[in-house]
Amino acid sequence: MIIKKQSIKMNEELIFELDRSDPLAGQRSQFSLPDGVIYLDGNSLGALPITTSARLKQVIEGEWGKELIRSWNTSGWYEMPRRIGAKIAHLIGAQAGEVIVADSTSVNLFKVLAAATQLRPERRLILSTSDNFPTDLYMAQGLIQLLGRGQELRLCNDTEVLDNINADTAVVMLTHVNYRTGRMLDMRAISAKAHEVGALIIWDLAHSAGALPVDLTGAKADFAVGCGYKYLNGGPGAPAFLFVAERHQANFSQPLSGWMGHNAPFAFDSNYTPAEGITRYLVGTQPVLSMTALECGVDTLLHVDMEQLRRKSLQLTDLFIRLIEEYCAGQGLTLVTPQEHDQRGSQVSFQHEHGYALMQALIARGVIGDFRAPDIVRFGVTPLYLRYADIWNAVQIMADILSTRDWDRPEFKQRAAVT
Amino acid sequence: MIIKKQSIKMNEELIFELDRSDPLAGQRSQFSLPDGVIYLDGNSLGALPITTSARLKQVIEGEWGKELIRSWNTSGWYEMPRRIGAKIAHLIGAQAGEVIVADSTSVNLFKVLAAATQLRPERRLILSTSDNFPTDLYMAQGLIQLLGRGQELRLCNDTEVLDNINADTAVVMLTHVNYRTGRMLDMRAISAKAHEVGALIIWDLAHSAGALPVDLTGAKADFAVGCGYKYLNGGPGAPAFLFVAERHQANFSQPLSGWMGHNAPFAFDSNYTPAEGITRYLVGTQPVLSMTALECGVDTLLHVDMEQLRRKSLQLTDLFIRLIEEYCAGQGLTLVTPQEHDQRGSQVSFQHEHGYALMQALIARGVIGDFRAPDIVRFGVTPLYLRYADIWNAVQIMADILSTRDWDRPEFKQRAAVT
Repeated sequence: MIIKKQSIKMNEELIFELDRSDPLAGQRSQFSLPDGVIYLDGNSLGALPITTSARLKQVIEGEWGKELIRSWNTSGWYEMPRRIGAKIAHLIGAQAGEVIVADSTSVNLFKVLAAATQLRPERRLILSTSDNFPTDLYMAQGLIQLLGRGQELRLCNDTEVLDNINADTAVVMLTHVNYRTGRMLDMRAISAKAHEVGALIIWDLAHSAGALPVDLTGAKADFAVGCGYKYLNGGPGAPAFLFVAERHQANFSQPLSGWMGHNAPFAFDSNYTPAEGITRYLVGTQPVLSMTALECGVDTLLHVDMEQLRRKSLQLTDLFIRLIEEYCAGQGLTLVTPQEHDQRGSQVSFQHEHGYALMQALIARGVIGDFRAPDIVRFGVTPLYLRYADIWNAVQIMADILSTRDWDRPEFKQRAAVT
Repeated sequence: MIIKKQSIKMNEELIFELDRSDPLAGQRSQFSLPDGVIYLDGNSLGALPITTSARLKQVIEGEWGKELIRSWNTSGWYEMPRRIGAKIAHLIGAQAGEVIVADSTSVNLFKVLAAATQLRPERRLILSTSDNFPTDLYMAQGLIQLLGRGQELRLCNDTEVLDNINADTAVVMLTHVNYRTGRMLDMRAISAKAHEVGALIIWDLAHSAGALPVDLTGAKADFAVGCGYKYLNGGPGAPAFLFVAERHQANFSQPLSGWMGHNAPFAFDSNYTPAEGITRYLVGTQPVLSMTALECGVDTLLHVDMEQLRRKSLQLTDLFIRLIEEYCAGQGLTLVTPQEHDQRGSQVSFQHEHGYALMQALIARGVIGDFRAPDIVRFGVTPLYLRYADIWNAVQIMADILSTRDWDRPEFKQRAAVT
């Protein structure tokens, strides 16, 4: 069924047929999802895999409680950053030795941005987009200020990236899928343009890894970072990952030169010698419990055909857009996610004047999405555990809230610390 | 009973009496410890509190699984770095708003060292000890190299620190208790000398926080960092903490300027504005599961009288030293931990020519300590869960291994990845 074809009005029978014929329908059983909730926020915090709780109990009570310190060797804790990195590499078109799990996305961005700028010392421009996720911009600002070498962070619109890459550009630092609009950039074309002028490229895969096929090798990407707690289902604040193309690994030793990135951490030398390969991007000891949950999350994706996942993702977002057109017309929603498949990630976002209150009203009715300042309601679409019926039901609830102005209540306007 | 008094030979009856009259004996029931193990490695990985597993299950299945993204507000996840920081502050003589939990000790050292060096831009020397824990030295080397401003890391012996602080010193960066020897530095005198010449002081509390009373305020310390997975019992790779004296907080914005340290993270401004107070030392999103375990660990110490803990710690280490003298004389063990109470942390270490094999032989017999290259066997003493009888039994086993040369087997000489 082609959802974009609008010759007949969508109805529940057609929706049920979409779910019945969904080859990924069985994947939902990998997750524990609460009753009465339609979860459209897996791009903020992925759902809980059914394996995670038992695995954590085993690690806590057995590996930590009984084996104690010995588990660094006997339970494979020491290898976790590389082992989970290799699994993520499989999802983003990288080689096993090019990805490592460590720290947060922000800290990892600092490492690769330090590497990339030092590999282009004669150039002073770091190019990004003005609507990039703020922490990426903040980390660049922090590095530039620390170095004090007159480097400049130049920002452009996300539709004008290609035009802004030139011979002064040291590094192009972009997020593949925009957190607010869901717009996906052309990784291959932009990477090629960066290389054509001699610049390096860093991709932030926070909203792509685990959401859609990524081909870092095909795009000849230089560096990448990404998030463990969104589409990788790694749990709240799960450690992040980073990618360094094999060709760059030996050329630079990143400045957060902690002992876990040392060539021989347990020799306790007083001078830093970087480890071979991607390991030099480790800093301190990694949080094993959170790493364990991340591995359970990554494992939910390992045997999924990413092309099939992408087809379902586009079907779901197409359906969402079409149903909003059919059921919420004239209610002040403006689609900000691109209609074109090759420019869309795995989310749908709308502007609405009362976006914050609208999202609170939705959450009160069990439809959990996200608000992104100043006025965007954002719905993450995670094809592993969402059904077509979820999209249908979410839109019916949204239509009801909008037509009754149910969002216009004082309790929906109080801002929480985290939005 | 004064253990140092050696008029009568120590015997099992006296040991039992020490345990019977120990006011902290009941604290052991806060921990889950395996049978057949004498755990003398709580300074590498603290033991498992009995509350941790159930609490993690609750966070995973309830807060994450059912509440999902809402838990950032409703389950207090957002406040964890400050909340746990305030608890740790109580253990190290700091104010609630001066400590925050985040990242690893290495990453935190980078932040405070960047702050300290930038607050003394006209001076070029960073003073530390040659036997400081290597990651501290490595992080300083990484920062110096990144900045390229001719700063120098100068190293001295840990007994000569006071003599090496002078008007060229920008920052004195020291570990309070040495990881290898267990020697404790005089925090108050060294901090005073640093301030006298206009330098700033950073203390690494990896082997002090939760092990003995620390008084950062009394010593007028400027900055500190510390570890969550040793005496704080936070679990493998638990997040670390950092301290910034209130007087320095507004003067500097650290370079790892991620969104969680922003003044308004959910406003999504494209320019970084640091948060007020200690929050500006946050970077990215913190690993909630590992943070939860850390909080359970810190809670085991909150109602303990730290002076009483210190008395027991010294009794246990005195006993260890005395028993080794009595039962292992002439077996090639050389004490490297100071005999003086005011120079000793909460561990006992010995040099032994075959230290690695000796430790493997001990571990094979259930006595778990640590080997530290090149030749040191190290025994961490955690008074919360160790009994005097544990020390007695450990020394009896060690005496047997040494007198029978049981360490001299090929399987005890194979080096593991993590030692």
